[in-house]
Amino acid sequence: MNIILLESHANQEKNFIINDLATIKHIKNVISANIGVSLKVGIKNANLGTATIADLSPTRLVLTDINCQTPPPKKQPLSVVLALPRPKVLRRLVLDMTAMGVKQLILVNSCRTEKSYWQSPLLNKIDDYIKEGLQQACDTIPMQVSCYPRLKPFVEDNFQELFLHHQALIAHPYANVNFYDVVNYNQETVLVIGAEGGFIDYEVDLFTRHGCTPVQIGKRILRTENAVSVLCGGFLLNQCV
Amino acid sequence: MNIILLESHANQEKNFIINDLATIKHIKNVISANIGVSLKVGIKNANLGTATIADLSPTRLVLTDINCQTPPPKKQPLSVVLALPRPKVLRRLVLDMTAMGVKQLILVNSCRTEKSYWQSPLLNKIDDYIKEGLQQACDTIPMQVSCYPRLKPFVEDNFQELFLHHQALIAHPYANVNFYDVVNYNQETVLVIGAEGGFIDYEVDLFTRHGCTPVQIGKRILRTENAVSVLCGGFLLNQCV
Repeated sequence: MNIILLESHANQEKNFIINDLATIKHIKNVISANIGVSLKVGIKNANLGTATIADLSPTRLVLTDINCQTPPPKKQPLSVVLALPRPKVLRRLVLDMTAMGVKQLILVNSCRTEKSYWQSPLLNKIDDYIKEGLQQACDTIPMQVSCYPRLKPFVEDNFQELFLHHQALIAHPYANVNFYDVVNYNQETVLVIGAEGGFIDYEVDLFTRHGCTPVQIGKRILRTENAVSVLCGGFLLNQCV
Repeated sequence: MNIILLESHANQEKNFIINDLATIKHIKNVISANIGVSLKVGIKNANLGTATIADLSPTRLVLTDINCQTPPPKKQPLSVVLALPRPKVLRRLVLDMTAMGVKQLILVNSCRTEKSYWQSPLLNKIDDYIKEGLQQACDTIPMQVSCYPRLKPFVEDNFQELFLHHQALIAHPYANVNFYDVVNYNQETVLVIGAEGGFIDYEVDLFTRHGCTPVQIGKRILRTENAVSVLCGGFLLNQCV
């Protein structure tokens, strides 16, 4: 937690009250801050800045003098289409993609996505994971997330319309083309990435017939989380946003 | 698990017996393979290839016709010096660094490393995590790992000798220099990376006085795991080994 993210209306209020116990615990135990101390904050969908602790109890934090003048870092020109992974892995993926400045995440079904994943209560916690990512990366603008639990209609009916004029790449360990040779880090891009076990051939073909180029990043096959960080990280390193 | 890693002596034997229950379970339940089926294997510190299942029971797997002719992928010209993270995080970090082809990992102490981390029984499992990483990435050559539980003597007495003629970079969110502007992906490199909370100023200074350049990757502060994947991934993408 490198900033505390405040709701949008914090800007209009003299005192802003936080009841979230995790935040209060972090301020007490990790930052060891107390009344009068200035904290780094960000206002959701607005600027970054500071606020002063006016009151602090085990269940209530009151911030005052909220002064936010610094714009948040730019997003990357990057959307990710991801086969829904195991719910446990989803938290870190959403947190890290948010932190890296991915603009939009679309979760889709795939042959190797177990049906039970779509019923997981953790899917309702995505907003919390996004908040964690924003607080990690000192950003204020949430990554947009949507779910398409049916793959074929999504690819056939929505994919090309959603990503018109995008560079569309699908990560596939056995592709002939190298990611590095074709990627343009300055172009609006959609990266399609499988979950554990990857996409089956039919799914790769489906995306390919709808405008995606299959790309690999060498002979080494990485875990989904690691592959997402490496690929999105390529944009981050080249733009340093 | 994209290959099954066999011990070095597998090459000299007609039949190779595996008693590891996790491997047997993976072959039965995930790959759904049975007697007669050919599996991808690698021989530790040697080549990649195939082997045939000669026998399979819930507690014993026998492989025969081991035929390994393909050399493993190259390592990256990359060593990482990492402040020992929480033991739970260590597994994924070691697994992913191994998978990405990092040559050498040195775990060091830091102000923000809790003393108890050095006593964790998980530290004795590093070889298992490396094996997981090799089996993930279809590699056969283990990443070298060593531990220096005292930071100052390590930096003052060992660091420069170990990394003579290396490009030495320390990741630091508040550095003036951008990683992307100074990194040479083709040069032997040592990356110094802090754990949760990063290095304190004294530690950054210590490394800087011993030849490290502090570098940042933009305004976004990433979790250790994510930062490691992004930075090592830069080498991976540019070399595609």
